[in-house]
Amino acid sequence: MAGEAVTRAPDELRPVEITRGFQETAEGSALIRIGSTRVLCAASFEETVPRFLRGTGGGWVTAEYSMLPRATVVRTPREVKSGRPSGRTQEIQRLIGRSLRAVTDLSALGENTITIDADVLLADGGTRCASITGCFVALYDACRAMLEAGKIERMPIREEVAAISVGIVDGVPRIDLDYELDVAASVDMNVVMTGSGRFVEVQGTAEGDPFEKSELDRLLELAEAGIKELIQAQRDALGI
Amino acid sequence: MAGEAVTRAPDELRPVEITRGFQETAEGSALIRIGSTRVLCAASFEETVPRFLRGTGGGWVTAEYSMLPRATVVRTPREVKSGRPSGRTQEIQRLIGRSLRAVTDLSALGENTITIDADVLLADGGTRCASITGCFVALYDACRAMLEAGKIERMPIREEVAAISVGIVDGVPRIDLDYELDVAASVDMNVVMTGSGRFVEVQGTAEGDPFEKSELDRLLELAEAGIKELIQAQRDALGI
Amino acid sequence: MAGEAVTRAPDELRPVEITRGFQETAEGSALIRIGSTRVLCAASFEETVPRFLRGTGGGWVTAEYSMLPRATVVRTPREVKSGRPSGRTQEIQRLIGRSLRAVTDLSALGENTITIDADVLLADGGTRCASITGCFVALYDACRAMLEAGKIERMPIREEVAAISVGIVDGVPRIDLDYELDVAASVDMNVVMTGSGRFVEVQGTAEGDPFEKSELDRLLELAEAGIKELIQAQRDALGI
Amino acid sequence: MAGEAVTRAPDELRPVEITRGFQETAEGSALIRIGSTRVLCAASFEETVPRFLRGTGGGWVTAEYSMLPRATVVRTPREVKSGRPSGRTQEIQRLIGRSLRAVTDLSALGENTITIDADVLLADGGTRCASITGCFVALYDACRAMLEAGKIERMPIREEVAAISVGIVDGVPRIDLDYELDVAASVDMNVVMTGSGRFVEVQGTAEGDPFEKSELDRLLELAEAGIKELIQAQRDALGI
Amino acid sequence: MAGEAVTRAPDELRPVEITRGFQETAEGSALIRIGSTRVLCAASFEETVPRFLRGTGGGWVTAEYSMLPRATVVRTPREVKSGRPSGRTQEIQRLIGRSLRAVTDLSALGENTITIDADVLLADGGTRCASITGCFVALYDACRAMLEAGKIERMPIREEVAAISVGIVDGVPRIDLDYELDVAASVDMNVVMTGSGRFVEVQGTAEGDPFEKSELDRLLELAEAGIKELIQAQRDALGI
Amino acid sequence: MAGEAVTRAPDELRPVEITRGFQETAEGSALIRIGSTRVLCAASFEETVPRFLRGTGGGWVTAEYSMLPRATVVRTPREVKSGRPSGRTQEIQRLIGRSLRAVTDLSALGENTITIDADVLLADGGTRCASITGCFVALYDACRAMLEAGKIERMPIREEVAAISVGIVDGVPRIDLDYELDVAASVDMNVVMTGSGRFVEVQGTAEGDPFEKSELDRLLELAEAGIKELIQAQRDALGI
Repeated sequence: MAGEAVTRAPDELRPVEITRGFQETAEGSALIRIGSTRVLCAASFEETVPRFLRGTGGGWVTAEYSMLPRATVVRTPREVKSGRPSGRTQEIQRLIGRSLRAVTDLSALGENTITIDADVLLADGGTRCASITGCFVALYDACRAMLEAGKIERMPIREEVAAISVGIVDGVPRIDLDYELDVAASVDMNVVMTGSGRFVEVQGTAEGDPFEKSELDRLLELAEAGIKELIQAQRDALGI
Repeated sequence: MAGEAVTRAPDELRPVEITRGFQETAEGSALIRIGSTRVLCAASFEETVPRFLRGTGGGWVTAEYSMLPRATVVRTPREVKSGRPSGRTQEIQRLIGRSLRAVTDLSALGENTITIDADVLLADGGTRCASITGCFVALYDACRAMLEAGKIERMPIREEVAAISVGIVDGVPRIDLDYELDVAASVDMNVVMTGSGRFVEVQGTAEGDPFEKSELDRLLELAEAGIKELIQAQRDALGI
Repeated sequence: MAGEAVTRAPDELRPVEITRGFQETAEGSALIRIGSTRVLCAASFEETVPRFLRGTGGGWVTAEYSMLPRATVVRTPREVKSGRPSGRTQEIQRLIGRSLRAVTDLSALGENTITIDADVLLADGGTRCASITGCFVALYDACRAMLEAGKIERMPIREEVAAISVGIVDGVPRIDLDYELDVAASVDMNVVMTGSGRFVEVQGTAEGDPFEKSELDRLLELAEAGIKELIQAQRDALGI
Repeated sequence: MAGEAVTRAPDELRPVEITRGFQETAEGSALIRIGSTRVLCAASFEETVPRFLRGTGGGWVTAEYSMLPRATVVRTPREVKSGRPSGRTQEIQRLIGRSLRAVTDLSALGENTITIDADVLLADGGTRCASITGCFVALYDACRAMLEAGKIERMPIREEVAAISVGIVDGVPRIDLDYELDVAASVDMNVVMTGSGRFVEVQGTAEGDPFEKSELDRLLELAEAGIKELIQAQRDALGI
Repeated sequence: MAGEAVTRAPDELRPVEITRGFQETAEGSALIRIGSTRVLCAASFEETVPRFLRGTGGGWVTAEYSMLPRATVVRTPREVKSGRPSGRTQEIQRLIGRSLRAVTDLSALGENTITIDADVLLADGGTRCASITGCFVALYDACRAMLEAGKIERMPIREEVAAISVGIVDGVPRIDLDYELDVAASVDMNVVMTGSGRFVEVQGTAEGDPFEKSELDRLLELAEAGIKELIQAQRDALGI
Repeated sequence: MAGEAVTRAPDELRPVEITRGFQETAEGSALIRIGSTRVLCAASFEETVPRFLRGTGGGWVTAEYSMLPRATVVRTPREVKSGRPSGRTQEIQRLIGRSLRAVTDLSALGENTITIDADVLLADGGTRCASITGCFVALYDACRAMLEAGKIERMPIREEVAAISVGIVDGVPRIDLDYELDVAASVDMNVVMTGSGRFVEVQGTAEGDPFEKSELDRLLELAEAGIKELIQAQRDALGI
């Protein structure tokens, strides 16, 4: 996990690898690696919906996110110890859920729920974006399996969705911040985008100094290019 | 709370009113009204800092957010009943805290903490943005009081910060969504900006269809104009 | 909040002001001020009853109580932080609920619940008594509104109810203790009484030395006189 | 547990029995029986004080109260199942603690705490009053043992304290309500009184109709007579 | 509680005493004493079953375990204070439940649950084993009472079950460890056995050095002999 | 995960594979596979000890255990949702900790703690035994690394420890129960044994009928043979 940032260009992604089917028990699963970051994604199909959807005929996609304690260089205590998911965890799982729902035709799911689990095995920056990108693959596979099993009648996935972090480090706009770059960034942005190049989510935060509109524009450009690559990796993994 | 949206132009803010000093027990306080939304903001000065700052000589600004149960048209159960702040509440209080810290010179605070409380008395959309705008006034007043009392040596506030919601409703980009517009919006964005016109936070979410870069640009324009008005209202209230 | 105790006679209430309708979203609401103490009271009508009343045809009145963090001179942490209402809070909300039910014909409510929220905006002693007095006004207004809306068939309120604190300070029996007097009191008593002059609740506690029957009698006399004034203020506010 | 109320006079206590030393592990302990109600009381001496007393040289007396699940005719779930003491439990343990502190010279305790445990083995009404009466014996014994052991320098107990319930049942003022009478009572009052006949606590509640001053006076008379008997039973048990 | 271990032979139980009916409110109850250890056991019959048994026609037996705070020489904080049963408590109550179910014909219970409460009044080692032995008596009595009341059609108890601790102390295998021996033991084992001499549970743990098969065999022999005595005590108490 | 039990002999282990170093962030780590069961084990070295060891010069080894939600055929809710580890989880993590401490010279650790994390990626029976076997490898590696880094002065590991499940299925004593066999077993036993062939823990439970001493003996024989194989696999993985 050392030294890799030295030679990477500001507009260059870390190596990406998506392995389908890691958790054979699940309806869909994928292990995604981006640089040293590794996230295990699983999709579970359940014949039930949250109360607010009962009787509507429509379904739901929701996500849960967690990190193994030694995903980090210093051990992170399990959240069960404090009795609840942290605010950060809840924010991330809401983001993953929203992102996946944005490309899903929920009415095609029927009154069923797909629960997505993203469990970070190793964390070196960008875990929430890697989770979105990997979970899409698990979700797609689960939908395909349910379609084949006759549990749903048509494919509910409308297009791909992927995510990448961008930021300004030492005055330079950069893509795909690893942990070390993330700590040094003065602006930190997560962008979620679809296969057709439209935005699902833009979350930019000044960690230090506030930022200008021109900087925002440059970061969005970088993100768009990176997400195109990630979506190609998803298509390759899924064979679509 | 009915019918007000009908005649408001897409680029027009609801009426804004900021009353300083509502909670006379606090070092700084303000009651902000934007349309029907009313938030009571208070700033508390405490001679302590979180553990990670001890011995650094620097201070901290943090925020807590809550709604009275009948701030809403249908009564909302108190969060103490479920034993913890919801994910939404935590997300909002982290946003308020980050926004205020972005314009504060924490080293000028010394090893002291200012805790900001934003309590929503009536909620008709835009409560997180109103909280940021009103809490800035409470924070500024508390800092002024602490400076006068000799608790700190120089003014830690560098510039103003305010926030507004924008969104796309029926295809039309609009500013300052009340509850009814917010429910109808396909894109929802919160923008936090400083007195000098730079971004602190941009959070845009597609609630329905993903959105284009051109739409994002139009929303940011609307936000910038609205925030200028809000900052003027802050200056008027504070007499600066 | 300073110095007001100096000139007030032992049998003299602080100035009382009851404003109806502060929270326009609620079925009934009132802002009560007694001296510096301010409590926002709201009544919510819900078409449900607790499990133990289902099928009985009767209704319920229950109350919740809270303080804003900066209602106090030193900031009080929110109870949601400790995950539950404190023992003191639970004791107060049970007292408010019992007091209001004592003047309500629950069978006239039908299988409906009125939830009363008392939120203390500023606390300078006597908040539980002010809550009972103000919440009665919110409850009455909600019942009147529900009667007009045809949700209930007859007025369930039988008579007024109000409350006041009394105590012994430096050997002198006094009414309506503000924070400073309360801290100094050797005996502290809360009295809840109806419009017809009967007791709903008498809670007297020796904080220091135990007390004699003659002292108890003097305190009850003071309370009775004060409660008459409070009930008049309720009638004036309600126009009854 | 049936039928005993039939022949008992309105001013007659149920049989009282106080056995010292039931829990030989504790510094002081007592098993009290009033009618069918049985409470095991234990006093634990600990060489520490709550934070707010550190450095003051004074001590503390605090109490905890619980019921075994089958103390009641229908099994009551353990409070640990809901994760916290109920509001009722907290109210009772605060009452026990206040009552015992009212007769204790806390400065004579030094910086030590006596924790009183009241565990109800069988509940047939009046458990909080029986707890106060029995816990006094455990407290006294623990103080005596600590004095003998040289842990404290003088006896901190100033006088006895005991408690009894009174109430109005079918229009008749009665003392020492068992469960059946308690359910039928329209007014319910707990009185805590010292060996010298002064009040520590008076808590009267109208469960149904509000009550008159004359009724209050009659109930206090009944309580005073009953408490004299209880204090004699304490003296007999303690040999003082 | 001192010195008793000195003269007891390694294969000798402490004195055992089982008193039926201590908690007359319960369907079955027993107070068991083994040496200084005392456990109050109660059995509650409830006409319901856990969700996973609904509609099966079969019943359930479950157990809860707790210690009074001053059952121990140093006061143990109540588990309700930490909001949940400790891991140790949960392990013990699962063991008690499993042991009792092993001798119960659950189908003979119908869709009813018997909840067993084991509350330790004094703890001097072996509380989990004493709980099993005593709870069997409470369970048997409750079943007999339910049979007589016509709530169940045939006796669900197939045979007796009892438990004892054994261990290796200073190299010597011993039975029925009191607190002092338990602390000194290098191997600690709990054995649960039926009236017909078969094992329900064997739980042996090396606290210090691992142990040999020959030691395990000797401990099991000791346990078997002791359990025969305990089962005789159960039969004597129950008159069977 | 289907059909593998068909041809496996009663005394035959499933295929075992131990991969060291899976989580490169940890001081020691291993991925263990036994049949379809996969557990990720990590050891974290921390320069602190629990309060009860401070100042003793000795160290501690503790363990935490969890399952990913889709480790199971039907998704298992995360324990953080219920706010605490289940009783089963606590029992398992205490067992893992005890087993590892039994072969560790804690005084050789100095005042340091090694925390072991066992996270089940796929669960097909025997996860607690696989965790013990795999965690030993992670622990050993962490100790070796700490010795090389000069954090400790001598190797604290005295010998190997491993664990296996045995049970009686359809009357046949068998080793290494997978999920399907485990569900069918009438007796279920976990055995923890050291490299020198001594017992650390024996936990046998009758799920259905109680069992005889001869059956217990046969199960222990099976376990001993299996554990020898597991210890060889550990030695191969560790190169010792």
